[in-house]
Amino acid sequence: MQISTILATKGSTVVTVTPDQTIREAVVLLVDKHIGAAVVIDGAGHPVGIISERDIMRLLAQNDHALSEPVSRVMTRNVTIARPGDDTRVVSKTMTVGRFRHLPVMDHGELVGIISIGDVVKAQLDEYEGEIETLQTRVEKG
Amino acid sequence: MQISTILATKGSTVVTVTPDQTIREAVVLLVDKHIGAAVVIDGAGHPVGIISERDIMRLLAQNDHALSEPVSRVMTRNVTIARPGDDTRVVSKTMTVGRFRHLPVMDHGELVGIISIGDVVKAQLDEYEGEIETLQTRVEKG
Repeated sequence: MQISTILATKGSTVVTVTPDQTIREAVVLLVDKHIGAAVVIDGAGHPVGIISERDIMRLLAQNDHALSEPVSRVMTRNVTIARPGDDTRVVSKTMTVGRFRHLPVMDHGELVGIISIGDVVKAQLDEYEGEIETLQTRVEKG
Repeated sequence: MQISTILATKGSTVVTVTPDQTIREAVVLLVDKHIGAAVVIDGAGHPVGIISERDIMRLLAQNDHALSEPVSRVMTRNVTIARPGDDTRVVSKTMTVGRFRHLPVMDHGELVGIISIGDVVKAQLDEYEGEIETLQTRVEKG
């Protein structure tokens, strides 16, 4: 299964923030949209980072005034990117090995979605269920 | 597969807080232990709630001083419990339908672990991989 199949169900809306917005603004956005991470984009719309619940929690653990800090203070830089044609099994391995929970999806320089490890794993489960059904039919047919 | 199989790999250490600890203390604990949720226990050690990153984010979105509030202010009450003998497929359905990300595991009135939707889904993937392998062998044998 390709990443594009996940996006077809999930939609390609990506919640973004800019590096100079406050962490407070990012928190409100994550909570309002029921998401775990947002993509941080520069003025040209290019991803320069990811900000996740986990990143925010980490700063809050050290700093009571974290909410007033800019997003740039806590975002993960050097973001790994997925492409719509990537295979979910390969992406799943990348995410597990690199301990990434979210990957932005880019197509020809455009941000076209964001996928979470949960999305990828659920897609794999669906795929395996399909494979099991096919194999069971073949076993029954002898 | 049973929940006990997941706990056998994951271990039965459960990070706990009390309702009167501050949310700041809970944040430090979650970050230090690299976990997404802790079980809230009363004086007798019985679970009375769950406090997760998501719960904390929700309060922070409304209240700049959330870190000084007690855990009881934000924890999810009426916690659904799993048992070691429960089947992962059933638990997975309970978690998806109820939108629970974490369930405490209780055995004879004792807290023996906590499982996340990620743990359950990964266990299902392993199980399906095993099933596919078995079925493929049967297909090849004709």
